Parts: sequence; C-alpha cells; structure tokens
Amino acid sequence: MEGSNVLMVDQNKLPFEFSIYLSKDYIDTIKAIKSMTVRGAGAIGAAAGYAMAQAFIDGKDLSEEEFFYHVIYAGECIKKSRPTAQNLFYAVDRVLNVNGSTVEEVVNNAVLEAQKIADEDAEQSREIGRYGSVLIKENAKILTHCNAGWLAFVDYGTALSPIYIAKEQGKNPFVYVDETRPRSQGARLTAWELCNEDIDHRIISDNAAAYYMSKGLVDLVIVGADRIALNGDVANKIGTLEKAILAKHYGIPFYVAAPLSTFDANCKSGNDIPIEERSEEEVLYQTGLDSEGKLRKVLVASPCSKALNPAFDITPSEIVTAIITNKGIIEPRENLILELFIS
Amino acid sequence: MEGSNVLMVDQNKLPFEFSIYLSKDYIDTIKAIKSMTVRGAGAIGAAAGYAMAQAFIDGKDLSEEEFFYHVIYAGECIKKSRPTAQNLFYAVDRVLNVNGSTVEEVVNNAVLEAQKIADEDAEQSREIGRYGSVLIKENAKILTHCNAGWLAFVDYGTALSPIYIAKEQGKNPFVYVDETRPRSQGARLTAWELCNEDIDHRIISDNAAAYYMSKGLVDLVIVGADRIALNGDVANKIGTLEKAILAKHYGIPFYVAAPLSTFDANCKSGNDIPIEERSEEEVLYQTGLDSEGKLRKVLVASPCSKALNPAFDITPSEIVTAIITNKGIIEPRENLILELFIS
Repeated sequence: MEGSNVLMVDQNKLPFEFSIYLSKDYIDTIKAIKSMTVRGAGAIGAAAGYAMAQAFIDGKDLSEEEFFYHVIYAGECIKKSRPTAQNLFYAVDRVLNVNGSTVEEVVNNAVLEAQKIADEDAEQSREIGRYGSVLIKENAKILTHCNAGWLAFVDYGTALSPIYIAKEQGKNPFVYVDETRPRSQGARLTAWELCNEDIDHRIISDNAAAYYMSKGLVDLVIVGADRIALNGDVANKIGTLEKAILAKHYGIPFYVAAPLSTFDANCKSGNDIPIEERSEEEVLYQTGLDSEGKLRKVLVASPCSKALNPAFDITPSEIVTAIITNKGIIEPRENLILELFIS
Repeated sequence: MEGSNVLMVDQNKLPFEFSIYLSKDYIDTIKAIKSMTVRGAGAIGAAAGYAMAQAFIDGKDLSEEEFFYHVIYAGECIKKSRPTAQNLFYAVDRVLNVNGSTVEEVVNNAVLEAQKIADEDAEQSREIGRYGSVLIKENAKILTHCNAGWLAFVDYGTALSPIYIAKEQGKNPFVYVDETRPRSQGARLTAWELCNEDIDHRIISDNAAAYYMSKGLVDLVIVGADRIALNGDVANKIGTLEKAILAKHYGIPFYVAAPLSTFDANCKSGNDIPIEERSEEEVLYQTGLDSEGKLRKVLVASPCSKALNPAFDITPSEIVTAIITNKGIIEPRENLILELFIS
C-alpha cells in the first residue's frame, strides 16, 4: 500500500504476462476481487483489508457520523464481492473494529491493521509450512488442486507451503498439479509457482487423479481452503470434494492447509457456507496465448449449449484426514477446532 | 464407402465446423484414427473395418502370396493406430477372416464384411438404447462422461442411446455433460449431439460432478467403454474411474453401455488392457473458436511446465452397477459375460 493506492499482481494474466494492477480506491479493489485479478483465500483477505483501509482514507474529510456510515457501507460492499472465502469477511471486520480518538487516528490505525493482516498472513503461511512439512517423506508424490501457494496468499501459501519447506529440507517432493478447470489455477498458477521454486511437477487433467492414485503413485493430497466450518467441513475450489472422495477410496491421506483466519465460528457445518455460482462463460470459453504471443479468448464448447459453474464445493470433515493450521495439525473435530482459538 | 474411398465426419473440427474427411486408402484411414478425426469405440471399429477393406482393394492386383502378406501387414498397421479400443481389433480380425475362391471374391467379401460391421454397430446401438432406456425414469437426471453418442458410433451410440430412446418415450431426461478434459469430447461433441436431439443439458467442468451428486441431483451415471475385460473391468476415457468412485460413494447407479464387440476375451482383467499415453500438448494447449470465428490453438498452462496425459483409465468391475449390452443388461461378472457370447 502506497498512500491510498494498493498494488497487486494481476493473476488473470499470469503466467503469460506479469503485470501490476493499480487500485486507487476500495471500488477498484472490489473490482479486482470480483474479476479474480486477486484471488486465493489469503490474498483476498489481504486485499479486503487494504480495501477497507482505502475506504477509511477516502472518508477522512467526512463528518464523524458520515464517516461512520461511509466505512460501514464500504465494508458491506467489500463483503459482497465474493461470498465464499472467509478471510475476506475476517479482514473487513478486523479493520472495521479499529479504534481511535480522532478520525485521523482511526484512519491511521485502519491502515496499520490492514498491513498487520497481510504480515500475519505471511507469518501464518510459514508456520503452516513448518508443521505440514513433517507429513512429507523423502521423494513423496503429492497431489494438489487449484492454487494455494504464494500467489494465493501474501507469501508461501497454505497447501504449497509444506512442499516448499520440504524442498528446502532436501526431501525432493514431486507434485501432480490438477489443472483445476474451469479457471485452470493449477495449470497456470501452481505449475508456474513450482517452476519458479524448481520443484519437479507435472500438470494433469482433473480427470487423471484417480488413475495415478490407483497405481499407487500418490502418497498424499494437500489442498487449501476458502472457509472451514466449526465441525471441520471444508469449502474449497470446485473439485476438492472429488479428490477427497478418491483419496478416501484409495486410503491416501487428504490434508487441508489453512490459517485460523479461514475458520468461521458462525458456520456450524458446511451447509451454512454459501457457494458462489460464477458465469457459465468461464466453462464455455478459455483464454490462452496464441502462436503470436497474444492472449486470446476462444470458445471451447458446443455453441448451442449452456453450462453450470459452481466455484466451490464442501468436503465433509469425515473424509478430511487432518487440517494443517498455523497452530499445529489437528483432526477436523469441533472440540479440537475450538481449542485452537483458546490456546 | 465409395469405391476405395471412405468418407467420415471430421470430429476434430466439430462442433465449430462440419467437414468431411476423405480417406483414399488405408494409410489415410490410419491417420484419421491416430489424429482422432474419427474417434469413439464404435466409429473406430467401423473405420478400422473399412481401412481393412481399403487394404484388400489396394492389393487386388498382387499375386496371391503377395496379397496375403499385404493384408496381414495392413492389419498390423491398423491395429497399431490406437491401443485401447477393442472394437478396432475386433473389426480388423473380422475382415481379415473373410474367405473366397479368388482374390476378387475375397476383396468383395472384405468390403461386404466392413459394411456389415458398420450396420451391426448401428443395430447394436439401437438395442443398447432399448434395454438401457428401462433404467431411466421420468425426469431423470443423468451424468455422462466423454462422448458415446452417434458421433462415436455409426448411429445412436452407447451411453447416449438409452437417453435418446428415453426422450422418444417422453421421459424428459436431463443430462449433466462432463466437459471431459483434455480433449473436451463432452463439452464439444456430447453437448452438440444433445442440442441436435433437443435434450435438456448443461455442460459442467469435470470437477463439478461430485458437487451435484452431493446435492442429490444425479440419479444415474451412464458412460461408454473402449474395452471390457472378461471379469467386467472397464477401460474408458480418462476420468471414468473418478465418476465411478464418486457414484459408489453416493450410492448412485453407475452403468456402462457397450456392444459385445467391446468385450475382449483375451483380457482376463483390466490389468491386461493397454492404456494409451497421448501427447502432453493435449493438456497444455486448447483449440477453440476466436471472436472472428477462426479456430485457434492457445497455450492454457504454465509455459515452463510439462504434463502427463493418460487417455484412458480402468474402472474395476466391483464399482460398476451393470453393463448395458445389445443382448441385455448384466452385472459385470465373468460367468454372465461368457453367457452373453454363448446365447
């Protein structure tokens, strides 16, 4: 954050173009969240925190009462940008709750709080990596879905953080990267991150995971989470539920990696978590680099057909082996989840 | 077949362009099978039968001994075009086994046999539809994977045939069409067929099947098969195994539709069925229609990453509810499969 400007990597253009999206105010940041210019649970949380800080800065010349309504209204707008990722709601509420004796002090504290959320995210990701790396044996073959790496967070990420730490420890991990249709965050972002980290990996179509599991070639699965209910049910990118069922079928451990800010005490179970339905265009069209190096959107489906596009699914806690948090690894049970917040 | 020419719809260009591929000899037909210009178990079988007939015609002026080696060699080449679909081997062997007292008579019989294989395929598809439609209740919601419709066969198809008959019977079926990455036969071919048949359907990314199953919105799954072993294990398009495991998890019936020509008595179990590994380019690139209506190939993945691309997987018979054949519906058990061939 520079003044009221927020800078973020445009993830829609990765891995083909590295460009920076400049957000001048909270409306710009909402647009970036909605369009998935910024995406991934932690990165959405950090962006939402900064969006709130931008709203505080915007309102600094208003009367005290107007200021109050302005930031409440901005908070509501930011919360409506995407419905599933808990970190977004968590960050908005944290910034909204800052205090101060003058508007100026409140604005300053809001900016500090947003920065703190981003810093904590990076710190928590490192902790997740530290705990999770214990689960990765030498030469382990790991399946991951979607992108929960440093692009999805402020640094390290969640699902990929244990893999990065395992690599640092010389364990030579290998990663099967689910393509993760329709938006292909696996093929585009996770694979690109793993290239950058020099970690051996292969992209597979989402359909091929069971094939490799059936051949005994997958030792464990690690995914991220967008929201975790009190009973341990996990909302994450569409297709996560499929991988969890396959892992259960083959007796392969299925781990979810997430910081405490992804847990939502207001959701008793996954039934309470709203699932975003996104545009059918994401399924029917795909964007890629043509032979001249230009990004092009092409129709990849029957022109007379419609599509359905749920963006997330709920994996019930019964088929989650454990959750890797920044406070340690726990089984997905309500009493253990509550203990995390008390300790 | 016209003279020694074979005409086929170019399925690589569908649904964006309807064009006819003209094969002048068996080498052309092999190219069409390898490139998936013609694809789908039954259509590959019919094309392989015609390819053999083309080889017989090519050789008609050779000496009797040269003729013999020529057709044996052609048969070997055709069998090497794709390794998994049983109908290909079945058709080559049937045409190779024709008799006659002169070379001319043998050539004529080969052409008649190839035509007969194609006619039988259409007839068997109708029978599969007739038997399978009994499994479809009014307003049933059906999930299918890949394309096993009239494009994949000579007419009707296998997995889609019961749905077409159910539609004719006024049962109003609804179909969830798995996109079926990497080649998207579901989104491109099945969805397009269903449009043409005016059957209500939605394309979903392969990742979304479990989501709809978990909500109780899928009543049954029907897929085709490329080869079925004697014990009932099924080789079919990559991702079929995933759908079967999901269906088992949710207690949803999982049906495989295939004619007798898809069974391979030489394979005791799925372990004996060779799985084709295709080019990684199919995962990393995708072809679609740009805004100017031109077909373009675009890179849709991290440019520094490699991919794996197994084209089929093996679904064990234990998680197949039943096989819908042209001789009736049977449980996937060796004794019942053997009985089919005796009766």
